[in-house]
Amino acid sequence: MQKINLGAGPAKLPQEVLEQAAAAILDYQQSGLSILEIPHRGKLFDAILEESKALVNELCELDNDYEILWLQGGRLQFSMVPMNFLPQGASAGYIDSGHWAAEAIKDAAVYGNINVLASSQKDNYNQLPEWPKDIDPSLAYLYLTTNNTIFGTQWKNIPHTAMPLVADMSSDILSCPRNYKQYALFYAVAQKNIGPAGVTLAAVHRSFLKKAKSGNASMLDYAAHARQHSVLNTPPVMAIYTSLLTLRWIKQKGKETIFEDNRQKAQWLYDEIDRNSLFTGTVAHAAHRSGMNACFVAKDKDTEKRFIEFCKNNEIVGIEGHRQVGGFRASLYNAVSKSDVEKLVTLMREFENRELQLS
Amino acid sequence: MQKINLGAGPAKLPQEVLEQAAAAILDYQQSGLSILEIPHRGKLFDAILEESKALVNELCELDNDYEILWLQGGRLQFSMVPMNFLPQGASAGYIDSGHWAAEAIKDAAVYGNINVLASSQKDNYNQLPEWPKDIDPSLAYLYLTTNNTIFGTQWKNIPHTAMPLVADMSSDILSCPRNYKQYALFYAVAQKNIGPAGVTLAAVHRSFLKKAKSGNASMLDYAAHARQHSVLNTPPVMAIYTSLLTLRWIKQKGKETIFEDNRQKAQWLYDEIDRNSLFTGTVAHAAHRSGMNACFVAKDKDTEKRFIEFCKNNEIVGIEGHRQVGGFRASLYNAVSKSDVEKLVTLMREFENRELQLS
Repeated sequence: MQKINLGAGPAKLPQEVLEQAAAAILDYQQSGLSILEIPHRGKLFDAILEESKALVNELCELDNDYEILWLQGGRLQFSMVPMNFLPQGASAGYIDSGHWAAEAIKDAAVYGNINVLASSQKDNYNQLPEWPKDIDPSLAYLYLTTNNTIFGTQWKNIPHTAMPLVADMSSDILSCPRNYKQYALFYAVAQKNIGPAGVTLAAVHRSFLKKAKSGNASMLDYAAHARQHSVLNTPPVMAIYTSLLTLRWIKQKGKETIFEDNRQKAQWLYDEIDRNSLFTGTVAHAAHRSGMNACFVAKDKDTEKRFIEFCKNNEIVGIEGHRQVGGFRASLYNAVSKSDVEKLVTLMREFENRELQLS
Repeated sequence: MQKINLGAGPAKLPQEVLEQAAAAILDYQQSGLSILEIPHRGKLFDAILEESKALVNELCELDNDYEILWLQGGRLQFSMVPMNFLPQGASAGYIDSGHWAAEAIKDAAVYGNINVLASSQKDNYNQLPEWPKDIDPSLAYLYLTTNNTIFGTQWKNIPHTAMPLVADMSSDILSCPRNYKQYALFYAVAQKNIGPAGVTLAAVHRSFLKKAKSGNASMLDYAAHARQHSVLNTPPVMAIYTSLLTLRWIKQKGKETIFEDNRQKAQWLYDEIDRNSLFTGTVAHAAHRSGMNACFVAKDKDTEKRFIEFCKNNEIVGIEGHRQVGGFRASLYNAVSKSDVEKLVTLMREFENRELQLS
């Protein structure tokens, strides 16, 4: 029996994606080869690459204006962004809204001058920082993390900015309505909403890519990856194929349906967190709450242990909060179904009844 | 029916590895989770990491003296090696024995002064360059590619050197006897002899790692990866697990058996290339021939096309040579069986008979 995985990622994948991925390992499309064996320069993989890029272009409504790249190492983007787009002597603006934003700032500072324009670090990131006013228009770019996985906050709308926007969308890409064309560059690890661990999607507006610095080694150069159509080196074929299967599933289900389901899932869960006498949400403002990662705590550690145990006994796993927040984190990524969330909400109610009877 | 894949990589994997990998996608060890979903910080993946590192340590006879890392992006090592081990003002020595060595030199030159100590580029790499004499002992390190996948040459024995040796072993790791402890750092993409595409094994001697430069961004810093036990970011869980399955298969079969099989496979094939009136090996000296990638040509393009067609009709694929050499390249990686090679040799004979009858 398959468990309900509410982990922060690697996340649950749709059952049909798992079945297709498993079948492809034994024989990819009756080619007599495993998906783990097909050549990365050949018709079979070319078709996977082309279809996956076309789906990203379509689902994100990019109007063919972006180079769509499958890269490796999500965190490597923290370096590649400034290496490519922070010219000597220029500055970049960063919004420090959580752990991964702070790590991106740390890695970027190796390559140039970073201005932290806003931060909620002093509040342990339990809210989004206030959007900065009067941003220096000479900044090379403005960098933000759209969803803060660990702290459960999310930027729903980003104001128009004069400088190029760069966003880490690792934990909310294709999970909610978003104007992707507002961004000069966005990227996302696959293992939350669009695939398995081992591959990172990056989309770079062609006009922004023209501004990239030359002189980087090939693997660290977005333009080199674009010129080689993501096969500058042997790509992670299986991870890209599983991402394609997931993108197909998104298209088939309909992204509007998925967005609406995600809205509903989050509302049910936050409503229960707010109603239930045992639990408290950790994010200071309801408007800042993430639609993907709902963070909450119980009144004490013992109660938390009992609830995690109760979930485990009822086939829900991955609900432990990150050590920087504690308590619980239920991740509601695309492949988590409405009935999965209903089950969690029901368990929260049952748990409350039990605890109140015990006391 | 499974085809015989003699491609240069992603390469054939053992059938039992494919079956176990497919099963793990549906349910990993009865955890109720897919291998694509298990958390990268948790008991299940910790056990995979620990066992895989222990197997590398054992199979390469490293005596626990090395940090064993699973990284992403083989070609990224071309940058990481100089970023970490080429101090300001120092020089590194490189042996230019093929396309990937030349690319490594190009990428390394971004970060410092590179001395090319030997090159066979002028011969289109149809032989190994002469090993350099009187190497400057002040070089930060000496870099080589042990097996040149495209050109079918291989360094069997490396003379003792005073400076640290760094080697790209992407296409011959764990395929033949080698003194791994001779190297300060060696790395290999998994997709030829030890796993699928999407992960790179790196082993760094602990004393060499202490000399690494500080100040690199985390993802480009070997020491940061070592401190975080290869989970500095979300690792490619599935690719590492499939590599573990392959390493287990190597151990179970016995590496001495595999090395002897590989020796036998290469001998059969080269003997046939030398005997067969239609084919000619492309490597100038028999002693330089690779045990992994056997490159050969036919007398003209039409004959080559017919032989490739003949192979395809007999379920052998991936035998086309690289465009820089032409003709054929049969890759004899660990999972290619002796009977696979016997079948190829038989086809070469049959093809010769047919062609001679036709003429």
